[in-house]
Order: sequence, then C-alpha cells, then structure tokens
Amino acid sequence: MVVVLVRYAVTVEYDGTNYSGWQRQLNALSVQQVLEDALSDFLKEKIVLHASGRTDRGVHAAGQVAHFDTDSAIPPHKIRFAVNSLLPEDVRIVDMKRVADDFHAQYDVIKKTYSYKMYVGNTLSPLRRLYYTRVLPPVDVEAMRRAAAELVGTHDFRAFCSTGSSAKTTVRTLYDVDLHVNGDEIILTVTGNGFLYNMVRIIAGTLVFVGKGKIPADSVKRMLLTGERKLGGKTFPACALTLEKVSYPDKE
Amino acid sequence: MVVVLVRYAVTVEYDGTNYSGWQRQLNALSVQQVLEDALSDFLKEKIVLHASGRTDRGVHAAGQVAHFDTDSAIPPHKIRFAVNSLLPEDVRIVDMKRVADDFHAQYDVIKKTYSYKMYVGNTLSPLRRLYYTRVLPPVDVEAMRRAAAELVGTHDFRAFCSTGSSAKTTVRTLYDVDLHVNGDEIILTVTGNGFLYNMVRIIAGTLVFVGKGKIPADSVKRMLLTGERKLGGKTFPACALTLEKVSYPDKE
Repeated sequence: MVVVLVRYAVTVEYDGTNYSGWQRQLNALSVQQVLEDALSDFLKEKIVLHASGRTDRGVHAAGQVAHFDTDSAIPPHKIRFAVNSLLPEDVRIVDMKRVADDFHAQYDVIKKTYSYKMYVGNTLSPLRRLYYTRVLPPVDVEAMRRAAAELVGTHDFRAFCSTGSSAKTTVRTLYDVDLHVNGDEIILTVTGNGFLYNMVRIIAGTLVFVGKGKIPADSVKRMLLTGERKLGGKTFPACALTLEKVSYPDKE
Repeated sequence: MVVVLVRYAVTVEYDGTNYSGWQRQLNALSVQQVLEDALSDFLKEKIVLHASGRTDRGVHAAGQVAHFDTDSAIPPHKIRFAVNSLLPEDVRIVDMKRVADDFHAQYDVIKKTYSYKMYVGNTLSPLRRLYYTRVLPPVDVEAMRRAAAELVGTHDFRAFCSTGSSAKTTVRTLYDVDLHVNGDEIILTVTGNGFLYNMVRIIAGTLVFVGKGKIPADSVKRMLLTGERKLGGKTFPACALTLEKVSYPDKE
C-alpha cells in the first residue's frame, strides 16, 4: 500500500492572552499544542506543525502560518471546519490550502508584518487592556516618525534584540515602519524579512522613549551604529504585539 | 458639626465580559458593586452610585456616567487615582468632576450613544470575539444603510423592544444611526434621547437581516408602523454592544 502524504499550510489567528506562546512546551499551554491536538484528533494521526516562527507568551497573531503533512484525503475546507469546531474560541484556522511538498513555513518566509498597538492616556483603558499598551501623555509622534524612518533598510539590529536570541546574524532588512495615528491610538506596523528576539517590542519602546524625550532624538541612529541595546527604550509589553501577516513566494 | 455633602459625577469605562451587568444584584458580580465597594473602601463611608441607566450582562461601556454623594474633602483627582488602583483591570474611572447638588445621572440625560461592532467573515475571529459579533457573508451594506435611515426621528419603537421592559412609553427619538464600514468591519453607531430594553441589539439584528435578505427591505418601516417585534431580525449578542457616551446639559 502506498501512503500519499499531502502538505498543507494553515493560516492561524489566535488571542495569545491565555497561552505561553506558540511553541509547545511542558507544563504550559501553547497554541501549537491546542492546534496539533485538534488536528491529530480529527485526522486520527499524529500531526506536527512547523510555524513561520515562534511568538512569545501573550503575543497575538492574525496571520501566523504553519505547515503539516497528512495522509488524509479529506478536503481541506472540511478539515478546517471540523478542526475549528474542536478548538477553543481563542484559536482559529482562518485559511488552509495545499502547498508544494517542499514548502516550508519557516524557511520560505519572504517577509513578516507585525503591528504594535498603543493608546495615549492617563487612565488604563479596560476595553483595550488585552490588545494595547498605554503611553502616558504627552508624546511627540513626529519625533517618533523621524526615528522610525531611520530603521528602514538593511542594518545590524543587534541593539534591538534581547539576550537569549539564537540568531546567527543580527542583520535584518526592514521594508516599512509605519506609525498610524487614529484619535488617541498609535498603531506601529513593521514589515521586514526577519525579526530578532523582542525586536518589535524594543522598537516600540525606543520610539515611544524618543517621543517622550526620555532618550535623545537620534537614539535609533546611534543604536544602529553602536549596537548598544542600552541606548534604547524599554522592551514594551507583549500583549500589544500581533503577528499580522507572513508572506511567501507564490509557489504554492 | 455640619456635614457638607458634595456630589460627583464619574465617567466609567468597563469591559462587561465578566460582569452580570451594571446593576448590583445578589449572587452575581456587577460593575456597580465593584465600583461602589472600591469607592466605599477608600472614602470610608457607604457610597451609592446612580448611573445613567443599566447595561445588560456582557455589555461594555466606554462612557457610562454615574453620580454619588460624599462628605469627603479629598480632591477628586486623588479619589479617582486611589480608587482606580483598588479596582480590577476591567473597570476604570476615566473622569470625575464635581456637579451641582441637583445633578442626576439618570434623569438629566439628554442623549446617549451606543456602538455595535460587527465583522463579516466565514470564520470566527479570536482577536475580536470579545467585542464584536460575526456576520456571515454576503451582506448588502447599502440596504442596511437605507433601512437605518428609516430609524432616525421620533417614533414608537415598541417593535424594537424585548418583553420585560418597564418603560412607560415606547416613543423615543433617534438623532443619528450610522454604519461605518472599515475593511471587513461594520460599526453601527446610534444616538438617541433614550433606549428601550435590547433596542440597539434588535436594531443591529434587524439591519443585518435586511442586509442578508432574510427579511424584506422595508421591514424597519413596517415595524415602526405596526409595532410588531416579529417582523424584525434577531436580538444580536450583548458582547458587541458598548455604551459610548452619555450627554448632559452644561449645568455642571
């Protein structure tokens, strides 16, 4: 008997509030675990997911991508529907499609987009506490924009990386760093070919520290030149970070 | 000794997810209770709050208003700061100011604004599940807009009211009914001089049923003419409803 393995890529949205992060681990509930368990339950075989990358404890995703292989002949829209009904409300497969046998959700990534959501206010906002972080007023958004522009391009981002990163190189390319202001909200959106450990949260903290005048206006430039993490702002909270999108070549 | 009572109005933001509603009740946690308890704890006297009106189980507020009297001489910004630190993260006093002795948070209301948040999609959205309701595509937003326009003005809204309402009259005036589309989101905003029991949730359900062709395009007009609730759509879920703002005459 010949077993034909089929490779699928799933796009997954999750609320990271109640998870230890994407990656399966002992003694803590991960998104990978609940998703692998639901897929394995339905497909009646052990399913292993390979994601585009980890997300940390408390980080959300609107468009995480992962691939897996199965010998099931059930059509993907039926798998998606059935597995979603087995998942908790805070995790959903929003898209599922067959990909080439050599597609790899991590190695084939062209670029990723993250958002980081902030609001400016004196009082914590109960309705935004799970998905935003608060910035105390006043904050100079134009100063933040000027600093953000320095990040675009290919740089050694080692100053925007927490210790504990296993990356071989700290050179990355950022294609776009955008600050969108809507009322009292500031949405930072960063697109790049790859991200170091805590990179977006350090970018957010550094831009806000510049906007509040807590560090010099040219801090981003100096961090990129010297590689010194200590010239930047704080690593901002995880709950405001969302992996929005992962892009691949159109070889599917 | 003369005790001078001072009246304050507080503007309160809360995430209704984990509450039985605004109003204090036995055997269930209400927003009123946690707020009265925190105020009473800090002010060391029994504080009773009078709100602009109740919100139901699961309904949120960005701008609920309530008044209370106290003989405390502590400045309001200090009370607010201290009480906020005693409150759970899903309830916050966002504003507090002294009002006239005869100000009444319920009787003096001029108008209220509610939002009702929806997204159009085939899959439940984990990141929006707490504050939105889902509408299955397709939906004709222009048909919804035409039906919404019929609601504006002074009408007998008894067809837009669940049984169990204690209102003396079912005549209300709606000043504005707006549908704002942003990507896959539809935000309904309704401003009126008062609202019947479940009125906004029935408006939302009826507009969506019109937009999906489940009931005739002229259903709103016929409901207003006949007063028949059964001509409308479903009462939509509470979690997508937010009391955005309560307005008073400028007599404070």
